[in-house]
Amino acid sequence: MRKKFTMPDKDMLVLGIDLGGTKILTSVINPQGEMLSRDHSVTPAAEGPEGVIQAILASAGRALEGASRSLERVSAIGVGAPGLADGEAGILFTSPNLPGWKDIPLRDILQEKFKKKAFLINDGNAAALGEYYFGAAKGTSHFIYVTISTGIGGGIVVAGKILNGSRGLAGEIGHMTIADEGPPCHCGNRGCWEALASGTALAKAARKRIETGADTTILSFAEGEIDKVTAHTVQLAAEKGDPIANGLILKTAYYFGVGLANLVNIFNPEMIVIGGGLSNMGDRLLKPAYRVAEERAFPQAYRAVRFVRAALGRNSGVLGAAAFAFDEMKRDLGGPGA
Amino acid sequence: MRKKFTMPDKDMLVLGIDLGGTKILTSVINPQGEMLSRDHSVTPAAEGPEGVIQAILASAGRALEGASRSLERVSAIGVGAPGLADGEAGILFTSPNLPGWKDIPLRDILQEKFKKKAFLINDGNAAALGEYYFGAAKGTSHFIYVTISTGIGGGIVVAGKILNGSRGLAGEIGHMTIADEGPPCHCGNRGCWEALASGTALAKAARKRIETGADTTILSFAEGEIDKVTAHTVQLAAEKGDPIANGLILKTAYYFGVGLANLVNIFNPEMIVIGGGLSNMGDRLLKPAYRVAEERAFPQAYRAVRFVRAALGRNSGVLGAAAFAFDEMKRDLGGPGA
Repeated sequence: MRKKFTMPDKDMLVLGIDLGGTKILTSVINPQGEMLSRDHSVTPAAEGPEGVIQAILASAGRALEGASRSLERVSAIGVGAPGLADGEAGILFTSPNLPGWKDIPLRDILQEKFKKKAFLINDGNAAALGEYYFGAAKGTSHFIYVTISTGIGGGIVVAGKILNGSRGLAGEIGHMTIADEGPPCHCGNRGCWEALASGTALAKAARKRIETGADTTILSFAEGEIDKVTAHTVQLAAEKGDPIANGLILKTAYYFGVGLANLVNIFNPEMIVIGGGLSNMGDRLLKPAYRVAEERAFPQAYRAVRFVRAALGRNSGVLGAAAFAFDEMKRDLGGPGA
Repeated sequence: MRKKFTMPDKDMLVLGIDLGGTKILTSVINPQGEMLSRDHSVTPAAEGPEGVIQAILASAGRALEGASRSLERVSAIGVGAPGLADGEAGILFTSPNLPGWKDIPLRDILQEKFKKKAFLINDGNAAALGEYYFGAAKGTSHFIYVTISTGIGGGIVVAGKILNGSRGLAGEIGHMTIADEGPPCHCGNRGCWEALASGTALAKAARKRIETGADTTILSFAEGEIDKVTAHTVQLAAEKGDPIANGLILKTAYYFGVGLANLVNIFNPEMIVIGGGLSNMGDRLLKPAYRVAEERAFPQAYRAVRFVRAALGRNSGVLGAAAFAFDEMKRDLGGPGA
């Protein structure tokens, strides 16, 4: 079933770029998934597309330097970007985390700047490919990568291939409605999975509880400032036994489980890989979420799925963007399995 | 992209069986999708698996007679069945509409009875294949068939193939939660799409309104008996201008639209084909549903989808079951595209 990931040239290198709303990670990567360098920098999101693209170029320069390779040694660029992207056209339509980005032909811009073939992929799909080729989902053929952090995103692999849909927009699992009258989501919909189960939703719920006078220690983990309350501060309070904090996490777990059950019923995957910042809460968040999924999904489908933590951590996106570029080049070259 | 539906033998015939919770439709079908006969009968669901299987055999006999063909002329049996089925293993796990069915090896039973190769497919997937090979979805490669009747079911085609998932259980779109605190569903979950937007849900909501004294004419279309209130009687009342009936249909349309938006965001399909009894309400139900989907889905993904009524009506399931059998036999024979 699974497409074998064989490269025409083992010495080929790709520049992988993981463009996030807050950070850029750039790396020189070989077909074995080895990262020859890592450059982390802050995304100057407020500067709009031009400033961000300048930051990408600077980061690429440092990543090449870190790997002691010249740009000539690199065969292609693979870039993962947040938001709604048409990979085939290379266009980033919109991104909630990148203000001012609208229908930007990011792929062609990078191709022009680097004079190299470039490939654009949605960040969720990139992370899925990373885990598929180099991480937790190796050897599967039907799996879903779910990232739970500020938002909820993901990538779906069906019979060994990313589910792209007709225009490359498929996989927006964070924006499936799980509560039709739920809170508004920045996407314009209401009651999206992301609006109820993300880190942002958890932090918002915590602030609300604090403002309405709940007896909780959460603020003490946020320097006493309500604006500094995040999912992480809630986690810290819960770890110290704060029942309010723990209750907030359980509520997030509940909503997370409702969405997982939907994925199990719709896709009957063999594996769901969970990544993203909130997955680091581990059992405190994930165990109750799996229990909710078990209660809500068809037993036969639930029994068929394995829930697994992502293996590549923060590197899944950049490795997946690189894997995507390798894959697309292989197709261009008409190699085996192309 | 699309797999061509070419047969090794144009004269081959298949016995298609559409097993429903209330009716059985059996037909002798050729690879061009022509039905050489049609036998309709009532499913003796209360008699359990044995009684139903006897009814299938009797129906098959009449269908062969109607087509003036002997069983010897038939190459295989294709059966579509409601509920959770593992097509590869040929097992019908459970079916909400077939009491007493649990882990029944329906495929092997039919193979044994007919001494012919048999193939089992979930009814939603069968209908999707029917529309794909012979109906509204011809020429597409990413589409979803949605049936809205007593329940909500469907089949998903990704890159020209039915989305089966790891155990053949994928596509249970009727059991995605769209309202986490919604009404209980017979599947054990709450707030399923089917529990809110199906004909059963509409009839239930209508009965509730009548019982709480709403000023509506619906009962007059149901012989004055509340037990005879169905989605159809609500439709009849709405057509005569009953505002309560119309409001009930609008509420169903709203929930139907919420689920459609989820499918658009998750799958980015090029087409969604709507079939099933309630789709015969036409614009009264579907137009407001599409409007809700448009409000809730990503605009880029919404613009990429065409909503189309099913073309094969009640025959989509039986034609799809036959197409599935042709397809599987072709694979066995190793023909072109196998």
